[in-house]
Amino acid sequence: MLISASRGYKELPTLTAISLDQINRALSSRLTPWTDLATAATPSTSTARPTRPPSQSPSLPPPFQTSSPHHPGLPPSPRGRYPFILYPSSFIRACPNSNATHRTHHKLVSIHRKTRFNLPRQGLRKMSTLTAITSSTSPLASAFKKQKVAIIGSGNWGSAIARIAGNNALKLSDIFEYEVSMYVYEEDFNGKPLTQVINELHENPKYLPGIKLPENVVAYPSAAKAAEGATLLVFVLPHQFIRSVCTQLKGQINPEAYAISMIKGVEVKDGEISIFADVIEETLGVECAALSGANIANEVAEDKFSETTIGHREGEKGKEAAELFFKLFDTPTFKVGMIEDVAGVSLCGALKNVVAIAAGFTDGLGWGDNAKAAIMRIGLLEMKRFSEEFFKGVKPETFTETSAGVADLITTCFGGRNRKCAEAFVKTGKSFEVLEKELLNGQKLQGSETAREIHEFLKARGKVDDYPLFKAVYSIAYEGIDAHDLTSKL
Amino acid sequence: MLISASRGYKELPTLTAISLDQINRALSSRLTPWTDLATAATPSTSTARPTRPPSQSPSLPPPFQTSSPHHPGLPPSPRGRYPFILYPSSFIRACPNSNATHRTHHKLVSIHRKTRFNLPRQGLRKMSTLTAITSSTSPLASAFKKQKVAIIGSGNWGSAIARIAGNNALKLSDIFEYEVSMYVYEEDFNGKPLTQVINELHENPKYLPGIKLPENVVAYPSAAKAAEGATLLVFVLPHQFIRSVCTQLKGQINPEAYAISMIKGVEVKDGEISIFADVIEETLGVECAALSGANIANEVAEDKFSETTIGHREGEKGKEAAELFFKLFDTPTFKVGMIEDVAGVSLCGALKNVVAIAAGFTDGLGWGDNAKAAIMRIGLLEMKRFSEEFFKGVKPETFTETSAGVADLITTCFGGRNRKCAEAFVKTGKSFEVLEKELLNGQKLQGSETAREIHEFLKARGKVDDYPLFKAVYSIAYEGIDAHDLTSKL
Repeated sequence: MLISASRGYKELPTLTAISLDQINRALSSRLTPWTDLATAATPSTSTARPTRPPSQSPSLPPPFQTSSPHHPGLPPSPRGRYPFILYPSSFIRACPNSNATHRTHHKLVSIHRKTRFNLPRQGLRKMSTLTAITSSTSPLASAFKKQKVAIIGSGNWGSAIARIAGNNALKLSDIFEYEVSMYVYEEDFNGKPLTQVINELHENPKYLPGIKLPENVVAYPSAAKAAEGATLLVFVLPHQFIRSVCTQLKGQINPEAYAISMIKGVEVKDGEISIFADVIEETLGVECAALSGANIANEVAEDKFSETTIGHREGEKGKEAAELFFKLFDTPTFKVGMIEDVAGVSLCGALKNVVAIAAGFTDGLGWGDNAKAAIMRIGLLEMKRFSEEFFKGVKPETFTETSAGVADLITTCFGGRNRKCAEAFVKTGKSFEVLEKELLNGQKLQGSETAREIHEFLKARGKVDDYPLFKAVYSIAYEGIDAHDLTSKL
Repeated sequence: MLISASRGYKELPTLTAISLDQINRALSSRLTPWTDLATAATPSTSTARPTRPPSQSPSLPPPFQTSSPHHPGLPPSPRGRYPFILYPSSFIRACPNSNATHRTHHKLVSIHRKTRFNLPRQGLRKMSTLTAITSSTSPLASAFKKQKVAIIGSGNWGSAIARIAGNNALKLSDIFEYEVSMYVYEEDFNGKPLTQVINELHENPKYLPGIKLPENVVAYPSAAKAAEGATLLVFVLPHQFIRSVCTQLKGQINPEAYAISMIKGVEVKDGEISIFADVIEETLGVECAALSGANIANEVAEDKFSETTIGHREGEKGKEAAELFFKLFDTPTFKVGMIEDVAGVSLCGALKNVVAIAAGFTDGLGWGDNAKAAIMRIGLLEMKRFSEEFFKGVKPETFTETSAGVADLITTCFGGRNRKCAEAFVKTGKSFEVLEKELLNGQKLQGSETAREIHEFLKARGKVDDYPLFKAVYSIAYEGIDAHDLTSKL
């Protein structure tokens, strides 16, 4: 019997009310009975992890041993990516009544009925019909291969997102492996290594104090160790660390994994501009999506209502990755939207900070709500125009309609350090360098940094004047132009 | 000589440096010299108005008397709308060196040169060439017929906009007549009629205290009197008064005038929904545009930077009207944008208040910035979707890209009475009716009113569930649903 273990997961239809007895009666009348395929198809690759629960089917014989590097114990995929699993008929056993198996059972029945595979309500007619729908494109195929999640990063936002991913991995145990590993840059916390503190307390007291992490989130001091065997990699690091971490991971990770970047900012190097999703994709050779939104970490961690946006690549793989990350992050209070636009989502997260500097200037000038809203509107359109001009496949609605676009711009221009420092810049007359020392403990302010990078990029192309708001922010921040001139060229 | 007096006015090219002497030398060498065409073409229709300056050319003979009701003293328009003016050659006189004439002169020369009418830099070759470009489509034709402006309304926003219109009428005296009339609902102010106070003080101490109005803004206690002879009518009244004022004006106004509505809100009557621009257009039979934006009146009155949006009708007339209103309102600190979408601009101004109620709920609930931004984003898209579903010709970018759309939503959801009352609604548990009495001196809150009207409209069509945020606002405001359920169905 040939069964696929695609990672493509889609929302399945509501279960129909067919009892397990009915199904088993139908199955046993014609066929070898049902087995716990989900468990059998997911050989554990990380039994040494500290908080993993015991396997539910330890006595099941292993499938054919093969050489697939991605899925040890599974034969290589005929499509090069998704392994097909060949089980000897002796593995087909009676339903062991596990939850996962129940779900799989019911889904199969439900899908059969929905897709009119000639399935009578009272039972399954043919096992061959069952086999037919478990093709590599079947929406339920993911039930046969669980996703292993690694969070690369553990700051304020990293810890908040690890909490969500950990909780969803527990809830959707037929999709995700139990453990969600988290790379933590090792440092001392009250005389103990931070990883140890996190794993003992189930909390990151340094960067997200007061918020409990689920017990399946496990901290590792090594990025490579955290990423070991992962099929879903979540990059949530300050952007200055991304290249060094990618270097550590190079050659160490599953080449068929999917990655997602939650990194704000852009990289301007040698006159070229890059988003970090592309940097990750090129460095590690894995497909990389992006996630951004109106997401103040502490509010997300407290389960206050919030939305976010996943920007994914085009094609089947891009959509498949997005749907998996959707499942990993979506909750009733953290609503995930999806759009086929990695660049747009990434650029929103970087360029909004430049607009927030301008918004902060208006606050410092005491110009009022009309002016601030106008600056935000003009800024949003410059963000969109810049992205459309210099990146392929950018969608305008990413900017004007998603949480990554307009909503994040709103939170950033009303809260946030960029707005705050820009207000202080106007009111105190101090430079951003001084304010970074005084207000941010020497940390770099992203908005003013990005304004400078964008300016250099545009200057090299003779296009500075095409973006008058970006230009005004740069001129005020770095060229001593009076902040009152903010709108004189708009 | 045939000269047109179209009202179509466009930005004219920068003046070239040709002296008046040079032009007059050139003219006198071949032709009857130049006349003050602008003055001659604009017979005064309101000499009795109090603050009008003396005409600059009182001794000019009148042009041919004809029957045009719109432009007394001018022949009827061959296009039915824009009169062509026929002057006997004896009217062609030497340039009287008035500013208006200078400008007309220089513009003619400049346009000649730009449009390659074979004009040498040192002078004009033929008067016939001059005649040729003063066709009905010439951008400078407006110089020959001035616009008479009437502001119908004098509240906080009406007074602020009258100040701008008055100033621009003074600056662009070749386009607009000197006086800008303003209809003021007569009431007592410290023992004097408010109109008298306004005309003496040049300030509206009741609704816009502390802000000087230019002296050419003249208050009238009668709407019909204020609108007399007006070619541009600006409606800026609370929406409950619009029908009664239109009744007063019916048959009294110039049928070829253009109107613009700055009225917030929609009218829901007999299960139908209307914008007030349509109500004005249908009642008075004049083409009506709409203006809306992130425009807190006091900030605009203080010349703090602000943007606004004119939504105009399609076609030549729609564009012409928009361009005239653009000239009337645009200043360096009050930037006017234009879009061909009267309904979208009007609906933004009404529906944003419903979203502001929802935003106020999140404030009351203490849900934080993420939630508020999410509600605003979802609200903006419901506003857009509602408008697209029930109105023709609505443009999505009106909502997502203009000052009337996203920018006004931002100011309304952060400042404004709707947000404030909704916050108090959650925090105090008092009804909107009680809060209107306590916080608004019994004035109706637009957001909760519009939420109710929209709900009734959608209910009649079985579409309440298609707009979950609007539904949630209604349910919380009027059906006792807990505010915590605001996002449960989003």
